[in-house]
Amino acid sequence: MSARVLVVDDVEANVRLLEAKLTIEYFDVLTCQDGQTALTLAAESQPDLILLDVMMPGMDGFETCRRLKAQAETRHIPVVLVTALDGREDRIRGLEAGADDFLTKPIDDVILFARVRSLTRLKQVMDELREREESSRRMGVGGDGARRLRAEGGRVLIVDDNERQAAVIAEALAREHRVTVETDPDKALAAIKGPLDLIIVNVAAEAFDGLRVVALSKSGDARRAPILAVVEPTERARMVKALELGATDILPRPIDVEELSARARTQIRRKRYSDFLREKLDNSLEMAVTDALTGLHNRRYMAGQLQALVNRAVHGGSSVAVLLMDIDHFKSVNDSFGHDAGDEVLTEFAVRLATNVRAVDLPCRMGGEEFVVVMPGAALEDAQRVAERIRRDVAAAPFRIMGGRESLSITISIGVAATTGEGDTPHLLLKRADEGVYEAKAGGRNKVIAKAA
Amino acid sequence: MSARVLVVDDVEANVRLLEAKLTIEYFDVLTCQDGQTALTLAAESQPDLILLDVMMPGMDGFETCRRLKAQAETRHIPVVLVTALDGREDRIRGLEAGADDFLTKPIDDVILFARVRSLTRLKQVMDELREREESSRRMGVGGDGARRLRAEGGRVLIVDDNERQAAVIAEALAREHRVTVETDPDKALAAIKGPLDLIIVNVAAEAFDGLRVVALSKSGDARRAPILAVVEPTERARMVKALELGATDILPRPIDVEELSARARTQIRRKRYSDFLREKLDNSLEMAVTDALTGLHNRRYMAGQLQALVNRAVHGGSSVAVLLMDIDHFKSVNDSFGHDAGDEVLTEFAVRLATNVRAVDLPCRMGGEEFVVVMPGAALEDAQRVAERIRRDVAAAPFRIMGGRESLSITISIGVAATTGEGDTPHLLLKRADEGVYEAKAGGRNKVIAKAA
Repeated sequence: MSARVLVVDDVEANVRLLEAKLTIEYFDVLTCQDGQTALTLAAESQPDLILLDVMMPGMDGFETCRRLKAQAETRHIPVVLVTALDGREDRIRGLEAGADDFLTKPIDDVILFARVRSLTRLKQVMDELREREESSRRMGVGGDGARRLRAEGGRVLIVDDNERQAAVIAEALAREHRVTVETDPDKALAAIKGPLDLIIVNVAAEAFDGLRVVALSKSGDARRAPILAVVEPTERARMVKALELGATDILPRPIDVEELSARARTQIRRKRYSDFLREKLDNSLEMAVTDALTGLHNRRYMAGQLQALVNRAVHGGSSVAVLLMDIDHFKSVNDSFGHDAGDEVLTEFAVRLATNVRAVDLPCRMGGEEFVVVMPGAALEDAQRVAERIRRDVAAAPFRIMGGRESLSITISIGVAATTGEGDTPHLLLKRADEGVYEAKAGGRNKVIAKAA
Repeated sequence: MSARVLVVDDVEANVRLLEAKLTIEYFDVLTCQDGQTALTLAAESQPDLILLDVMMPGMDGFETCRRLKAQAETRHIPVVLVTALDGREDRIRGLEAGADDFLTKPIDDVILFARVRSLTRLKQVMDELREREESSRRMGVGGDGARRLRAEGGRVLIVDDNERQAAVIAEALAREHRVTVETDPDKALAAIKGPLDLIIVNVAAEAFDGLRVVALSKSGDARRAPILAVVEPTERARMVKALELGATDILPRPIDVEELSARARTQIRRKRYSDFLREKLDNSLEMAVTDALTGLHNRRYMAGQLQALVNRAVHGGSSVAVLLMDIDHFKSVNDSFGHDAGDEVLTEFAVRLATNVRAVDLPCRMGGEEFVVVMPGAALEDAQRVAERIRRDVAAAPFRIMGGRESLSITISIGVAATTGEGDTPHLLLKRADEGVYEAKAGGRNKVIAKAA
């Protein structure tokens, strides 16, 4: 997979060298020589990856990384810090500044390309999610884009046959996370199917093939858990293969617990960010079928569901009933006590409605003071019984309004109808129920009228 | 990237051989020996890719492929047909059955892995989209999942320095698609930035580096266009590199126009499917802020926008005004003519409302017969003028109902309010407008009342 890479280094010779290496491998390369320019260029040209030198005069790599991760336009772009060979301190500072990865000078080409490809692949999926999320924000659906994501409390699975090493890792992470250790590969393969925020695999294990554990973790249902592969730093081929198979980060042996903790936090935070985006999208979608005031289903949802259920009933499936209900004299609530009080009545009614229907029923607000319950599988008499229960429960106790300072007696009129077989449509069904409401109102309100076809 | 691969072949030796090759490369392999089992197994275990032998007793590979592409649970899984070496006819039949790609026996390992990786990568992004789309379908948002996607009329760019070959390709595709040819690489790189459904690149071009064209097509904004790479079948390394850089399919030279057409259709259809999924998700999101009956913004959208505008006004920004309007005696429309007629009045009112506000204004339906217009930058007098225009336009001509058989005189009462500076809130603003509506009703209806704070 090709990618657009931004190279940032104050030493021109370094820039040219990296540019040449990447260009030969068909990457699209942009360059600049200071942090300030990198911030602007990254925002404008949206690279897929930034290779950022740590040691630069003026704004150094750490500060540049921090700012890249703080500005909305560049937050999602992976940053690889280029550090000196013995840069343990640098690595930890870098991870704390939000860096996604490290390369040490002189740069090993094979590892460079493996890293770049791995991060680009990850970003491609995230871009898809982010774009949908941006659409929803632009449309004004959901607003809490900036929720702070925790990096603690992650569910971590350690797969390692080296018990002493596993214990070191587990102890280091147990302070912040919920850790499980598996030394048996078969049990590990069962465990990776569960919900996890991070899998740490010893790919140099002796008792089993660690690379296979990485591969299987990425081909099943658990593929969204990031994988931290523990390797000997001298085993380049294994490291590259692990990245190729889907490991999201590499932890060199011997294990430095501080670096381990920082890398684990980075991986867990990233996992949660993508979970958060998915959840947020699903929530936005759910809003499309929910009534904002009462939380009941809305008219749109009702229409879709009723159509499907009536189709099924007409073609020999089980019947479906509807209750159409209207709050009596609702206008006078608004006129006498204001719209806020009206909203309180609607909300309280929604609660009483939802608690009096069956689990399979769909209570919906049609708009204003009009509600519908769609009842799959119900015959006219069943529906009438439920309607009667709702009517009684509404009339039984007054509704508290004005934050509890006043209370009001509320009643409702309900029309009931059920499918009769051939030729029935949602429209006809709702029309019969509507006639029921009309008769209930004409007959003095606070009534249930069932209309046979 | 690892992947779960289903191998289907009636000859057990073939199954074992492929299984061994794939397992060594860390793929998760499932196998079976007939088409019927393949259909069930694919639906259950959701592989990332299916390698399907063409020649099988009973249900052959073509039929199995057709059924895999017809059943909802497996439609999205890429299918690679394994054919005999001279299988030109087979390839065309396979593409028509919906196959995504071909491998010829004996299978070349390097090409096998490159293909499998390329298809898996593509699928990963699609899975993300499909899952969101499934959520929205489960929630009952949008129902037209089965829209038939056209494979014709694609925008195709051919990048080739071999003018004769380019002309052959262009002629073959021009019957079904809109084709552009670029022989100059710089012009081609500008052209790939436009909206395209397919890019055909001669990666064996002499005048420029075709692989770089593939890479740059995949690293910019146009990255969603599929790429068909034209190669010499003997140039394996180039073929593999093209797939690695993001080419979505390979067309061997010399060009077989029938195979070209079939491959182009497959690529274009797939591109349109992902565009369709993206669009559908965006539509679903838009539904969350739209009133289903009138197409105006809904209360949820209004609330979000008004909050932001009032915040700005309170902090020294320009003022914002609201019109709150209520259709006079609307209940009697429903009571006398039924809900359908009521809906006709609401819809027609929404049209008159939307045509009488300014382009920057936000007309919204609050529910029932209540509407709001949010007017950014408007002072009380501006808003009053617009309100007066709406009132006049509604009263001026009767509303046609019952499909045009009846008509009704409709009037509305409008309350107007605007921000006054410090201390204002959306709630207070709407409350003042509501008092205006109340006074308009009390004063005989069909009136505009502006309420200064």
